[in-house]
Amino acid sequence: MTETHVPIVENILSANDRLAEQNRTVFDEAGILAINIMASPGAGKTSVILQTVQALSPQLRIGVVEGDTTAVTIDADKVKQAGIPAVQINTGGSCHLDASMLREALSQLPLEHLDLLIVENVGNLVCPAAFKLGTHANVLISSVPEGDDKPYKYPRIYRGIDVFILNKMDLLPYLEFNMDYFSKGVEILNPQSPILPISCRTGAGVHLWLEWIARRVQVQQSRLAAHGSIS
Amino acid sequence: MTETHVPIVENILSANDRLAEQNRTVFDEAGILAINIMASPGAGKTSVILQTVQALSPQLRIGVVEGDTTAVTIDADKVKQAGIPAVQINTGGSCHLDASMLREALSQLPLEHLDLLIVENVGNLVCPAAFKLGTHANVLISSVPEGDDKPYKYPRIYRGIDVFILNKMDLLPYLEFNMDYFSKGVEILNPQSPILPISCRTGAGVHLWLEWIARRVQVQQSRLAAHGSIS
Repeated sequence: MTETHVPIVENILSANDRLAEQNRTVFDEAGILAINIMASPGAGKTSVILQTVQALSPQLRIGVVEGDTTAVTIDADKVKQAGIPAVQINTGGSCHLDASMLREALSQLPLEHLDLLIVENVGNLVCPAAFKLGTHANVLISSVPEGDDKPYKYPRIYRGIDVFILNKMDLLPYLEFNMDYFSKGVEILNPQSPILPISCRTGAGVHLWLEWIARRVQVQQSRLAAHGSIS
Repeated sequence: MTETHVPIVENILSANDRLAEQNRTVFDEAGILAINIMASPGAGKTSVILQTVQALSPQLRIGVVEGDTTAVTIDADKVKQAGIPAVQINTGGSCHLDASMLREALSQLPLEHLDLLIVENVGNLVCPAAFKLGTHANVLISSVPEGDDKPYKYPRIYRGIDVFILNKMDLLPYLEFNMDYFSKGVEILNPQSPILPISCRTGAGVHLWLEWIARRVQVQQSRLAAHGSIS
């Protein structure tokens, strides 16, 4: 099984990488910053997206792609109710988004009229790490009740992350969560990437994330303007 | 890609099913009840296992197989410290256990001297659902902070479960979690399976689970004795 299986997986991954590069070109030509949000189920991906949309849509034009394993549109509906263009990718039971799925979703979004595209990956701390999407930044949302040992247990997805959101900080008083142990695990894998402690429920710390993402959009737009990509 | 890919996946799954049947035979011949514990990362799989081992090891001989995506032995070490035979399967980054991995682990356990084998699957609400292991019962641990919508969003893994543990009930006062909505989602997929609300942290409700699992071991041993499988 291994002999026939492994080369096929390698072919799929390298085909995916090529499509991811094409997606990146699409984003750059449209003047968009695209981010890939990953997390365990229930860590708060959709809540962070909703807070982002509500706070920043007056100043930024935002689009959202929701990755789900089924046709259930719980998350996409919430985003659409906030008045934001949203497309759902139904992975058909598959455990991650890939570059080809994202490319198909992009055709249904008004890319030329967006500044920021937020991609919500499937809730999973394993598989999404293996598939590049072509986005400019990887965001990982951890949550306090998941426990402080997750960077040590799921190192592959904790690596190559540009910014960490640590959500559900309001539950800290009720749990044993060693912040130093968690932070050390993150820093070993990503010495440069900040950890932003927030609570979507109380709103505490959310401004840290809003500042981070607004600054990244600005940097992206300056970069593209310098290269003459934005008409 | 689809044309060449799908038959290979089907072959892998049917080969896995055959190995799962062989594992089942091994369990039955050894007079063991084997259970497959699945959950999202951080829902409390290892905590439930530790509570089970501590409470029941005076009356039951228990072994544990820990599935992890890396060689980090955080969970297996905790179980071993409780004086219980434990084997870790390092899936090498793979997102689930399969029957072949479990078979290899079984060779390292004193099966003839066990009553209950607990298999802790990889923390993931998608992939483990697709791979039978040959165990007698599927246990899904949900946790209150994950949110009440998980049965609707991950229906594949919520289907075919024999008992649901709803952990971290002590956090209920601090969260919006609609128990009726959660229970309804579970019941649509599994009309017969109980939901056991517990808190590993406070110990509340854990006796419900201990009673369930002790009874299942008893039923299995009576069934095997009636068939003359236990020497």
